Amino acid sequence: MTDDVIRFGVSMNRRLLDGLDRLCRRRGYASRSEAIRDMVRERLVEQEWEGEDEVAGTITIVYDHHAVSGPDLLNEVQHRYRQLIVATMHVHLDHDNCLEVLVVKGRPAEAREVADRLVSAKGVKHGRLTTTSTGRNLA
Amino acid sequence: MTDDVIRFGVSMNRRLLDGLDRLCRRRGYASRSEAIRDMVRERLVEQEWEGEDEVAGTITIVYDHHAVSGPDLLNEVQHRYRQLIVATMHVHLDHDNCLEVLVVKGRPAEAREVADRLVSAKGVKHGRLTTTSTGRNLA
Amino acid sequence: MTDDVIRFGVSMNRRLLDGLDRLCRRRGYASRSEAIRDMVRERLVEQEWEGEDEVAGTITIVYDHHAVSGPDLLNEVQHRYRQLIVATMHVHLDHDNCLEVLVVKGRPAEAREVADRLVSAKGVKHGRLTTTSTGRNLA
Amino acid sequence: MTDDVIRFGVSMNRRLLDGLDRLCRRRGYASRSEAIRDMVRERLVEQEWEGEDEVAGTITIVYDHHAVSGPDLLNEVQHRYRQLIVATMHVHLDHDNCLEVLVVKGRPAEAREVADRLVSAKGVKHGRLTTTSTGRNLA
Repeated sequence: MTDDVIRFGVSMNRRLLDGLDRLCRRRGYASRSEAIRDMVRERLVEQEWEGEDEVAGTITIVYDHHAVSGPDLLNEVQHRYRQLIVATMHVHLDHDNCLEVLVVKGRPAEAREVADRLVSAKGVKHGRLTTTSTGRNLA
Repeated sequence: MTDDVIRFGVSMNRRLLDGLDRLCRRRGYASRSEAIRDMVRERLVEQEWEGEDEVAGTITIVYDHHAVSGPDLLNEVQHRYRQLIVATMHVHLDHDNCLEVLVVKGRPAEAREVADRLVSAKGVKHGRLTTTSTGRNLA
Repeated sequence: MTDDVIRFGVSMNRRLLDGLDRLCRRRGYASRSEAIRDMVRERLVEQEWEGEDEVAGTITIVYDHHAVSGPDLLNEVQHRYRQLIVATMHVHLDHDNCLEVLVVKGRPAEAREVADRLVSAKGVKHGRLTTTSTGRNLA
Repeated sequence: MTDDVIRFGVSMNRRLLDGLDRLCRRRGYASRSEAIRDMVRERLVEQEWEGEDEVAGTITIVYDHHAVSGPDLLNEVQHRYRQLIVATMHVHLDHDNCLEVLVVKGRPAEAREVADRLVSAKGVKHGRLTTTSTGRNLA
């Protein structure tokens, strides 16, 4: 079964281990195993995004809703790529500025394409694609 | 006024300019100005996150809702830092996996702290802090 | 000619321009043009490394020369990839630790392969590939 | 003693472990321990560069030796910061382009300062600071 938990030994010099323990405390990891699993998953997510299989991600954009070339443009992009966009959340940062996060699911190249379209849209002040995973291949 | 638009000249060799134009086409920028403004903003956002003033960001986590040490832990963290967390969105990726995005607003160190707590929580398979801006200082 | 210098206009809000000017001062750029050219080149280098054409890079490794599985291993790797490795510099950091920088030239995938081999070698404490350019396509 | 090797157990689901093993093969790690030690060191180096203690790094610059504002400028910067610069290597990439790598040792802020000066110098087409470690705190 893929859900078996396996235990294996890792060897480390005292000094490196002290470094790891400091890192666990600082970041709030309950155990070394937890911290190490996180590092491994981080690398695996990087690899997923170099491949062709389905990944998940979020696109964060900050824009001035007065300046954006119509919320229409953003809407239009979102509709064109609606099969990739799972959900959207909108936050009013202040009188002028909005932050929008979109959750996307699809092939890496497609996700990058939606992100490029949104980030490069007129009126969008800052935008970024965050790469994560559907979780399926990360036990 | 801070909203004045100013036009200034930039000089570039033909070859570099060709590179810029290819980049605009590939990423979908309507003009060189738009692409250059984006690059400048990207650097300014990096600087904001090295400072002490209020920034905005998103925290993306993927977790197995069976394995997470109680949605309780995630809830507890979120309540403890509720003044930083503006809004949350939850997506069911499949039977087991959930993706949650939180929009945070606060000082960079605080935002990093919430992210560390959530990313290091048991059951969270992957997590990442995305740095962006409240938009106030990005014209 | 590719060496023609072309001047074009860029428009920016006062506030964003102030941000750019602060950035120029902080980083020591003599002019806005210089800073903007640098940002454009930075993006172009990223694109070069996604392609297939020849790029340049450096590989930096720090290792304990007592612990390394024979300087032999490092030597062996370097000889196997000698057509990619243009030059090497070695610095004695202290009694135990050495830093070695290699300049590599070749296709992105090949450069990554040498880097992987060296970084993963036993005794290498830290290693990193730095991506840059042959300069040919960066006017 | 700091050189004691300590062995501890790490637990992982079968699927995550398979991912780790694939990663080891792809990158050429001889063992899981070796790969995990590398990930830990990578995080510790990041932390070193957020602190005040001595670090090591390399600065890579690519420039057209015709266009640089005198090799003089580069020389001048290098002399001003000579206490930080341990060694330099120069490679002729082609008729026009040179690649220079500098090994620097000092406090993170100082190393960043030299890098900023060199990267922003007229004629430098691309430059980058690579952060690594003196190795002293990485067993």
